[in-house]
Amino acid sequence: MDFLDLIGAKRDGGALTPDEIRWVIDSYAHDGAVTDYQMAALLMAVLIRGLDSDELAVWTEAMLNSGEVFDFSSIDAAKVDKHSTGGVGDKVSIPLAPMVAACGGAVPMISGRGLGHTGGTLDKLESIPGFRTGFDPPEFRSLLEEHGLVLAGQSETVVPADRKIYALRDVTGTVPSIPLISSSIMSKKLAEGLDALVLDVKVGSGAFMKELAGARELATTMVGIGKAHGTATTALITDMNQPLGKEVGNASEIVESIEVLKGGGPADLIEVTERLGSEMLVMGGLADDHPAAVEMLRNAIASGAAFEKMEEVVIAQGGNPAVLHDPSLLPKAVSHEVVAAERSGVVERCDAFDIGVAGVRLGAGRATMEDVIDPGVGMTVHVAIGDEVAAGDPLVTIHWNRAERLEASRQLVERALTVGDGPADAPPLIYEEVR
Amino acid sequence: MDFLDLIGAKRDGGALTPDEIRWVIDSYAHDGAVTDYQMAALLMAVLIRGLDSDELAVWTEAMLNSGEVFDFSSIDAAKVDKHSTGGVGDKVSIPLAPMVAACGGAVPMISGRGLGHTGGTLDKLESIPGFRTGFDPPEFRSLLEEHGLVLAGQSETVVPADRKIYALRDVTGTVPSIPLISSSIMSKKLAEGLDALVLDVKVGSGAFMKELAGARELATTMVGIGKAHGTATTALITDMNQPLGKEVGNASEIVESIEVLKGGGPADLIEVTERLGSEMLVMGGLADDHPAAVEMLRNAIASGAAFEKMEEVVIAQGGNPAVLHDPSLLPKAVSHEVVAAERSGVVERCDAFDIGVAGVRLGAGRATMEDVIDPGVGMTVHVAIGDEVAAGDPLVTIHWNRAERLEASRQLVERALTVGDGPADAPPLIYEEVR
Repeated sequence: MDFLDLIGAKRDGGALTPDEIRWVIDSYAHDGAVTDYQMAALLMAVLIRGLDSDELAVWTEAMLNSGEVFDFSSIDAAKVDKHSTGGVGDKVSIPLAPMVAACGGAVPMISGRGLGHTGGTLDKLESIPGFRTGFDPPEFRSLLEEHGLVLAGQSETVVPADRKIYALRDVTGTVPSIPLISSSIMSKKLAEGLDALVLDVKVGSGAFMKELAGARELATTMVGIGKAHGTATTALITDMNQPLGKEVGNASEIVESIEVLKGGGPADLIEVTERLGSEMLVMGGLADDHPAAVEMLRNAIASGAAFEKMEEVVIAQGGNPAVLHDPSLLPKAVSHEVVAAERSGVVERCDAFDIGVAGVRLGAGRATMEDVIDPGVGMTVHVAIGDEVAAGDPLVTIHWNRAERLEASRQLVERALTVGDGPADAPPLIYEEVR
Repeated sequence: MDFLDLIGAKRDGGALTPDEIRWVIDSYAHDGAVTDYQMAALLMAVLIRGLDSDELAVWTEAMLNSGEVFDFSSIDAAKVDKHSTGGVGDKVSIPLAPMVAACGGAVPMISGRGLGHTGGTLDKLESIPGFRTGFDPPEFRSLLEEHGLVLAGQSETVVPADRKIYALRDVTGTVPSIPLISSSIMSKKLAEGLDALVLDVKVGSGAFMKELAGARELATTMVGIGKAHGTATTALITDMNQPLGKEVGNASEIVESIEVLKGGGPADLIEVTERLGSEMLVMGGLADDHPAAVEMLRNAIASGAAFEKMEEVVIAQGGNPAVLHDPSLLPKAVSHEVVAAERSGVVERCDAFDIGVAGVRLGAGRATMEDVIDPGVGMTVHVAIGDEVAAGDPLVTIHWNRAERLEASRQLVERALTVGDGPADAPPLIYEEVR
């Protein structure tokens, strides 16, 4: 195979052959003939010229096959999972995974860490004292077999091509490409050996995709890859113009997730969780239709089964289960500061991006992968777009530990919020389904 | 300066700022912050998105300023040079440089080696026993001062950015870009500290540019860069559908060049040499107009001044001047084989690309930069497009040394030539001027 022929085809707007794609991904992933600088040039050509659906299916399979691919066919339960493209306050995975497992699904959930203004499920889970997320494939399998649920980080042995390609994209300006994003996400998810996958594609200021058209393209591309692989896949496009739920942070998002598992929690978080869970149960053949699936999910909460499943998994993964009963055992910030409304009116803006960056400044997120998370800091967002407030009402409470980080964070929180004369319509929570 | 901002602008179709261009070229050339893989991604973005004329002027200046820039202002004579984009049988530089020097120009000519199907002036010159082409800048200057002519290879200290960028382009599929080709050529030529430059942009099967439109774009781009730098620059677009002159090889091209300097040689080679030389003399202020310039060049041949200048330079650069008087002292192939016409008719095709590749197979050129040239092998092309031939007439004589190389070469020569019923018009020798 000649790299120069291959890159020439893509550079000049043509298509790569399946053999070319398999060769270039395999060679790059395993330190073969393709160098970093050659891959960087190809990634830029792919970003600008695109990949058609046939190329993308082969590209994703090649990434998937660069490492270990789980085969959970010996587990009878339907293997189902959810993936979110990332948002602010998006803790859906944490209540959702035990809810679905309590309904009979097997959920081999592999999550990531936060980077930039978006949070990461792994960081949130690791605020539970003792909770482990790193497992080798045999451990991962036995946790799934025993509990029907595992909440883990990416193993080194799974999709090594993605780790290498993602690191290169990060430093070469080749991140914002729908085919490259889609293949990165889908190769990792499809390596979980799933029967069904639901994607939560976020749209709005706090999402990677700011506009609905882009979110729809990303959703359609990923659903196409899932189907080409033979895995039932749907996507919901959901709002990320404002944070989801009330809590933005790490330990505080665990607290809010526990509330959901106990039958409480904010309505927007519950609705998104139920809609995604319902997709998983129906696609996995665990429920006949969406009303029946929502009923099952609510019963799993009401009966305590979902909470017990969470408790079982926290114990299995080395965490202290006492935090589920007494959330005050979780890390907490020392101080807090309230940002209050300066006037009466209507909340016209509660910008998810600014709130997310405020969290990073506070220490709840990472500007670079080397940064260390402070699990106790965060924000409680008391209002949502469309809410009426009186002058002096609390808008956001900042939970902080280090005074030198407070000011930058507070400025961003103030910028995030606009109280005006209104009216202001709340954005839809769920925009559309892509099947 | 943030590389990701910079590459993002070009990736998304925007322009780079002058500071960004200077930073990225300087950092890359001098092992600064910009890595090979980052530069590779940027080069691909530049190839696909292009550089506008302002960006290209700054890009070329930045490359030029990455190393030593000659200042020959202390030399009174007009500093003039010629550059060819490369062809088959294109030995114009060899008679041209001493002709122009004999007319009073100072010619600081830096040439390259052959790669692929095109030959290189340095390889041809080095077939003269003892002839040196590697000089450090002080030696180069003193040769130019003393003789008004130096025929040299690229010094390591001049335009190091180009050496590094060219090597990267070669392995990343980023060679075929008019802005990148133009900046590579022009940065090296403008570093010679010239008053005037004439470009010979080849077009046709044996040229980089197969079509006139592409050649015109390349010529216009390079002339624009020269003018932006303040150096008088013109381009001639000349034919490379068939070889120039009769000889294709290394020592044999020196022989043909000596014939021109002695007042002989093939008409096409003489015409191109005179036209390019005339541009140099007029732009350099050495002649009032083109007819006067051509007259001067012909006088330099007729008087022997051009031949004597060549002899002077061969001696100055360590070569054996006896070869100029007795070309049989140059390396010669042991055997020859004639490819003859199988029928009577008209030569409809004498393909420069196939002839060039036949030369590489024979050992006269390089498939990779590591290949060693056999200076004695080559081809004598007896015919040109439009010539009438009888069955059995010699079309090409192959001068060969190694039997195992002959067959591939002969097949290519046979493929290169078509004798048909005609009529066949000879292509124009010179298509247009770009000023």
